[in-house]
Amino acid sequence: MVKRTRYLSKRPKSNQALHQAPGTVTYVGRKEQVETLLEVIDYNADNYERFTSKNPEDAFQFEEEDRTTWINIDGLSNTKEIEKIGKYYDLHPLIIEDIVNTNQRPKIDEYKDYFFIVAKMLYFREDGRLENEHISMVLGKNYVLTFQEAGGDVFNGVRERLSQAKGRIRSRGADYLVFALLDAIVDHYFIVVDDMSDKIEAMEERVFDAQPKDDTILEIQELKRTMLRIRRAVNPLREVVSRIEKVDHDLIQEQTLNYIRDLYDHMLQVSENIEIYREMTWGLMDMYMTTISNKMNEVMKVLTIMASIFIPLTFLAGIYGMNFEYMPELGYKYSYPVLLIAMFFLIIGMLFYFRRKRWL
Amino acid sequence: MVKRTRYLSKRPKSNQALHQAPGTVTYVGRKEQVETLLEVIDYNADNYERFTSKNPEDAFQFEEEDRTTWINIDGLSNTKEIEKIGKYYDLHPLIIEDIVNTNQRPKIDEYKDYFFIVAKMLYFREDGRLENEHISMVLGKNYVLTFQEAGGDVFNGVRERLSQAKGRIRSRGADYLVFALLDAIVDHYFIVVDDMSDKIEAMEERVFDAQPKDDTILEIQELKRTMLRIRRAVNPLREVVSRIEKVDHDLIQEQTLNYIRDLYDHMLQVSENIEIYREMTWGLMDMYMTTISNKMNEVMKVLTIMASIFIPLTFLAGIYGMNFEYMPELGYKYSYPVLLIAMFFLIIGMLFYFRRKRWL
Amino acid sequence: MVKRTRYLSKRPKSNQALHQAPGTVTYVGRKEQVETLLEVIDYNADNYERFTSKNPEDAFQFEEEDRTTWINIDGLSNTKEIEKIGKYYDLHPLIIEDIVNTNQRPKIDEYKDYFFIVAKMLYFREDGRLENEHISMVLGKNYVLTFQEAGGDVFNGVRERLSQAKGRIRSRGADYLVFALLDAIVDHYFIVVDDMSDKIEAMEERVFDAQPKDDTILEIQELKRTMLRIRRAVNPLREVVSRIEKVDHDLIQEQTLNYIRDLYDHMLQVSENIEIYREMTWGLMDMYMTTISNKMNEVMKVLTIMASIFIPLTFLAGIYGMNFEYMPELGYKYSYPVLLIAMFFLIIGMLFYFRRKRWL
Amino acid sequence: MVKRTRYLSKRPKSNQALHQAPGTVTYVGRKEQVETLLEVIDYNADNYERFTSKNPEDAFQFEEEDRTTWINIDGLSNTKEIEKIGKYYDLHPLIIEDIVNTNQRPKIDEYKDYFFIVAKMLYFREDGRLENEHISMVLGKNYVLTFQEAGGDVFNGVRERLSQAKGRIRSRGADYLVFALLDAIVDHYFIVVDDMSDKIEAMEERVFDAQPKDDTILEIQELKRTMLRIRRAVNPLREVVSRIEKVDHDLIQEQTLNYIRDLYDHMLQVSENIEIYREMTWGLMDMYMTTISNKMNEVMKVLTIMASIFIPLTFLAGIYGMNFEYMPELGYKYSYPVLLIAMFFLIIGMLFYFRRKRWL
Amino acid sequence: MVKRTRYLSKRPKSNQALHQAPGTVTYVGRKEQVETLLEVIDYNADNYERFTSKNPEDAFQFEEEDRTTWINIDGLSNTKEIEKIGKYYDLHPLIIEDIVNTNQRPKIDEYKDYFFIVAKMLYFREDGRLENEHISMVLGKNYVLTFQEAGGDVFNGVRERLSQAKGRIRSRGADYLVFALLDAIVDHYFIVVDDMSDKIEAMEERVFDAQPKDDTILEIQELKRTMLRIRRAVNPLREVVSRIEKVDHDLIQEQTLNYIRDLYDHMLQVSENIEIYREMTWGLMDMYMTTISNKMNEVMKVLTIMASIFIPLTFLAGIYGMNFEYMPELGYKYSYPVLLIAMFFLIIGMLFYFRRKRWL
Repeated sequence: MVKRTRYLSKRPKSNQALHQAPGTVTYVGRKEQVETLLEVIDYNADNYERFTSKNPEDAFQFEEEDRTTWINIDGLSNTKEIEKIGKYYDLHPLIIEDIVNTNQRPKIDEYKDYFFIVAKMLYFREDGRLENEHISMVLGKNYVLTFQEAGGDVFNGVRERLSQAKGRIRSRGADYLVFALLDAIVDHYFIVVDDMSDKIEAMEERVFDAQPKDDTILEIQELKRTMLRIRRAVNPLREVVSRIEKVDHDLIQEQTLNYIRDLYDHMLQVSENIEIYREMTWGLMDMYMTTISNKMNEVMKVLTIMASIFIPLTFLAGIYGMNFEYMPELGYKYSYPVLLIAMFFLIIGMLFYFRRKRWL
Repeated sequence: MVKRTRYLSKRPKSNQALHQAPGTVTYVGRKEQVETLLEVIDYNADNYERFTSKNPEDAFQFEEEDRTTWINIDGLSNTKEIEKIGKYYDLHPLIIEDIVNTNQRPKIDEYKDYFFIVAKMLYFREDGRLENEHISMVLGKNYVLTFQEAGGDVFNGVRERLSQAKGRIRSRGADYLVFALLDAIVDHYFIVVDDMSDKIEAMEERVFDAQPKDDTILEIQELKRTMLRIRRAVNPLREVVSRIEKVDHDLIQEQTLNYIRDLYDHMLQVSENIEIYREMTWGLMDMYMTTISNKMNEVMKVLTIMASIFIPLTFLAGIYGMNFEYMPELGYKYSYPVLLIAMFFLIIGMLFYFRRKRWL
Repeated sequence: MVKRTRYLSKRPKSNQALHQAPGTVTYVGRKEQVETLLEVIDYNADNYERFTSKNPEDAFQFEEEDRTTWINIDGLSNTKEIEKIGKYYDLHPLIIEDIVNTNQRPKIDEYKDYFFIVAKMLYFREDGRLENEHISMVLGKNYVLTFQEAGGDVFNGVRERLSQAKGRIRSRGADYLVFALLDAIVDHYFIVVDDMSDKIEAMEERVFDAQPKDDTILEIQELKRTMLRIRRAVNPLREVVSRIEKVDHDLIQEQTLNYIRDLYDHMLQVSENIEIYREMTWGLMDMYMTTISNKMNEVMKVLTIMASIFIPLTFLAGIYGMNFEYMPELGYKYSYPVLLIAMFFLIIGMLFYFRRKRWL
Repeated sequence: MVKRTRYLSKRPKSNQALHQAPGTVTYVGRKEQVETLLEVIDYNADNYERFTSKNPEDAFQFEEEDRTTWINIDGLSNTKEIEKIGKYYDLHPLIIEDIVNTNQRPKIDEYKDYFFIVAKMLYFREDGRLENEHISMVLGKNYVLTFQEAGGDVFNGVRERLSQAKGRIRSRGADYLVFALLDAIVDHYFIVVDDMSDKIEAMEERVFDAQPKDDTILEIQELKRTMLRIRRAVNPLREVVSRIEKVDHDLIQEQTLNYIRDLYDHMLQVSENIEIYREMTWGLMDMYMTTISNKMNEVMKVLTIMASIFIPLTFLAGIYGMNFEYMPELGYKYSYPVLLIAMFFLIIGMLFYFRRKRWL
Repeated sequence: MVKRTRYLSKRPKSNQALHQAPGTVTYVGRKEQVETLLEVIDYNADNYERFTSKNPEDAFQFEEEDRTTWINIDGLSNTKEIEKIGKYYDLHPLIIEDIVNTNQRPKIDEYKDYFFIVAKMLYFREDGRLENEHISMVLGKNYVLTFQEAGGDVFNGVRERLSQAKGRIRSRGADYLVFALLDAIVDHYFIVVDDMSDKIEAMEERVFDAQPKDDTILEIQELKRTMLRIRRAVNPLREVVSRIEKVDHDLIQEQTLNYIRDLYDHMLQVSENIEIYREMTWGLMDMYMTTISNKMNEVMKVLTIMASIFIPLTFLAGIYGMNFEYMPELGYKYSYPVLLIAMFFLIIGMLFYFRRKRWL
């Protein structure tokens, strides 16, 4: 059987959750409890420091003017800790609610002192399942906070560039870091979309070759669903990037805008690819339908050929199986071989007829 | 048989109603007469009072400056009472018409002293049926009026927070109360949409497994209809919320706008989910079609296999059932067992052939 | 056979008409000649006068400042009379052309001294056919002209309110009268659309139950066509109402705007309903298709069951109908009953098999 | 076989043409060489003169201030002549390229001293084929140039009104003439679209009645293609007319604008009709599909009824054709008639069964 | 088997590439290593010089004010050389990344001193495959740089006009050269789209005539994919051209704008054609489906006719093959010929019946 994916993650249904006030911090993500872990990377062009801690207070000392601090928080289930961090950085209660509400769609909110960005990381887990992970970013004056559901992420490339001072990342500020993180997210969209392309092609082969077995149709449905989920994660982020580009705010430096524009181009490209694959996925159903019809056609031809050849012959045999007393042919010596030969030519004639109709 | 839902509620058809002037207050909602009942909640950060009354006059005393009064009116069939309340609060005649016209689509009208908002509550009744209830709100300086068709609603969470002073609701004004009410409505949209998701998945299983029985197709049609009805209730409200956000009016305080924006994000999310489920619902029909074709294919294969095996054999038996005088084989001792063995190998051959064609 | 409706009314094809100058007044409506008849209603808050005349001159005396005059002209085939009225009120030649061109789509034209509005009345004639009647309105300073193809219309409610001074209609000016007339037209759209809803539901039942008889598919096509015609009549009027709302002109008073806005809300609602019913109508075709396939499936199953049971049995009978001399079974006493019993169990077995496959 | 239309006319493919500079005047229209012929109509309210000439120089004398000159050039294959005329009127090289490039889509270009308009005339040739003819217009101060591929056109009505001074055409200027010409073109769109409506209806009848013969499907495809071609000719012109309406230029007089607006209304109407017919055309395919399925159903029923009745009977006959020695029934006197009667009732029973299933 | 095209070219998947900083110059195009080759064309109205070199330095001397230099670089795999050229002309790192990133979608970036344009050349290679080649252009003050993946291109016409001083190309500046290059690209779009039209028509014939063989459906799918790829290459360029038209920059001279506008018209035309062909391509699937159903219908008719004629006859023969002792007909002299004649008329009757049903 096909592994079924929930269409979309769900909001809590319990009456209790529904009675909560807006701004209440409720974690609705994955079930397994993950301990909140902070990873702090503090750098400028010349220095680089990195450590991890379970204790949020440790991270708060990094606030020097000429350095950029990236605090990456893994594990959202401990809402207390999240609230504490939120308070320290003076985040609006609605932001904290959105950080832990893993169903929140990608968006950007501008506040006086910081930007709040929600995005979705798409990547493949080791077991091949598509992970759709909620990520929130806060871009402040010289710091970036990122909040993730669980450990795995798509930022290893960024970490490596930071630690090895590759490219220009160390000499730019916090806004460039946010760009680099978003760029890493979008790069993984390409990988995911390319993978979908492989799956669609493989499915085309299978459909074309399909036995009307059970799974094919469910798997096509599953592909559709995955395409819809990817689109749902990617398209709102496009608008987010477009808004970063247009925003006029001290936090975004002029020189970073070129990179944001480039990122926007990439987002457009991903979106276009998604639309194309979506159309191909929808086409699979038609293809499957046609393949089934073709197979049915083949079945019917076999039946028709068998029946058309042997039913008339059986009739002939039936004729000479009748018990009339006066059937002169029955007494002739060569009746039997003549009949057999006639039957033989009848078969040949039929086969010719079907060959001419191109049924054989 | 499937329970059929009316596509949409209907306007009155009687000639009489058609001859009425615009602004005439005519109740077109549910048939059962519900007595008009007022529930008055009067609060500020420190105080909280709540009572119910059948007498509208009782509610009118609550008009103090530093308190917020929420008057919830249940039962619209007594249009006289509604008109009386309307006159007391100086509501425009068209508003009163819209309050009792339960077919009115969600909208917002701005007047000098108040806002008028129409929305639809979607929730499940105890019998599992989807309730689509008309609700009108009037947001005035320090009061909120809500008008509902019948008793059940989705506001219990708000009532609880008010009475127990949970969250910030008691310390904010009437505009925040309207936000909280709309938020409760939208939260229930999520529940309804999630439930549709479950139904679609269940239907996918059923379709995939379907006997070409009668109901399946009607139930798919019913699902489509429900999706259309939900969309019709939800989408116009999105525009309403978007307009509240953009409006520049004393009644909406600056600090409430953040919450409204958040609400708008939720509405976007519901809309997106609805579109996705709608696409999946429409896909069900294709899926059903394909399943039927697959089943037909299977039926045809059984027929073809049976016919292809036994029709030639019957012909052979017919041959030796003929009554020609000169059929030498008839006299041979081993003719019969040889023929039986030949027939046996013919059957085996056919089965191999069909196995190779993967029909077995 | 189904009553076929012309998709859309047609323009004249004669070479003569094509050579006519723009602005030429040519009647292209229904064939039956209707005598032009004027109905004059002259009123203010206190007075009310009504008479009819075949003589246009009679109507022209009503031009007093403090009264509103509604002149309703029935019958457009006498283009001479129409031109005479047009000249008296100083209407632009293109307006007069549009008044008699019953194919003109709904629109609004602003002139210095008057508005010109074209709309379509949809209502059911006594024989149940949907009437799509062309109506033109001219809104002047204190008069309203309405031009209709034939006698029947949807304005009886307005006439009644005028004569009985119901509501506020008598105390408002000509702009309110135009609103009231448009409101009556839109109210009838609701009736027509509701009726379509009934027809679609009835058709769903029929399709679901359909014999692959001839008419069903033509009737679905007819439903589609009617939906398209209704949409074509309604949607452009929505834009017309929206433009009245936005226009800034002395002829439209401030206090009427609220009513226009309300009318626009109703138009939105009709449009939404039309889109929903349209989608349901298009779905009927799929439903029909699926029903046919289901029926085919059933037919095939009967065939397959009959053939699968009796073809092997016939083969067995054929075996023992052969005339070999040495067939020991033929001589045994119990061969015959044993064979019959074997055949009986074969039938039972087959029936079990088909039951397990749920074909029975 | 169906007459196939090329989807769209093509650009030249020769390498030579591709190496030409932009602005190179290359004729890509119909193959037959048509001699360039000028028709000059020179008029004002009082005077009217008309002559034809093969010599472009003859036409150039008409340049008087108080008269309007319409020069209609037939035949674009002689690009030399076209260039000569172009130079005399100081037309931009790109305009001359567009005049002879018969694949150019409808558009309007504003220049300082003149407007350049490209449109498509749709009309039926004598052999019933739809002609899609390229027409270019240049509207100058007191002259209009029109360039056509070949002799036939849709302007005879305009010529007649000019020569007989019908309507207001003689007393208006060159801008009104352009309006009149466009109006004539649009009037023919109505004819063409109405004709498509007839064809679609006829096709509906045929499809409904269709034998699964070859042509039907190709003809539907051909209808689709024609609808797409018509849309391609009409829709861009709508934008052209809309731009004439909005342009603010001395060449377009205030009083002509009313007529342009009216023309735009007509264009909207044509476009709407095209969309409706397009939808109906696309629906034909579904209809055809359903009809085929219905026919298949009928075929299957005949087969199933025949087989279900006679296969069991043949089995019965086979039983009593067996050669067992001990078959007591064989010796009874009434066995034979009893069996015949039993078979008769079996047939009756089966017929009843199929009648109840409504297959008969 | 069909040659399968990758839907879209892919981004590198290696972890290494993903960890690279934005702006890193990585070549992701075709595998075969092509040596970077520079072709320099330096001209003004009077002079023309052309040479090729493998050494980028040779080209850099051409920088005179009154001449235009076109440097065409073939072969992007040597990223070092590309970076060197980029640095010489002071190109932004992101531009250099886009030059070698052959998956970059068409776009235009404005910088202070130059424009950067990405487009896609579509043309047919000698083996008939559709080439989708990445091309980047830099338009500077008096120079144009073009970067191509490999040798073949669509610019031979431009080269010829430059060398032979055809048209106005030599007397205009660099902006006109860019226009001429884009025009050559767009001209080839027409060729490619026309070719698709031929392929679609050919496919229509094949589908209509199709045996339910394997390839047809895959080839339709392949056509769809090619249409999507062409659209993906063409549509973004339309926006690019539209932006060149609107940009207000010294590098684009007033007199070139007319040509750009003309180019935009051509792009619109290509886009429209693509949409039409796309719709026709999608229609192929329906057509194929219908054709299959028609063929199935035919197969079923043959079966039904054969079965309906011979099954009843076989039954009759079976009757007289029974071994009852008392079957009086068996003894009559003319029973046999009478039965044969009766059977003959039965056959005739059946044939008449099927002919009347138009199955023959």
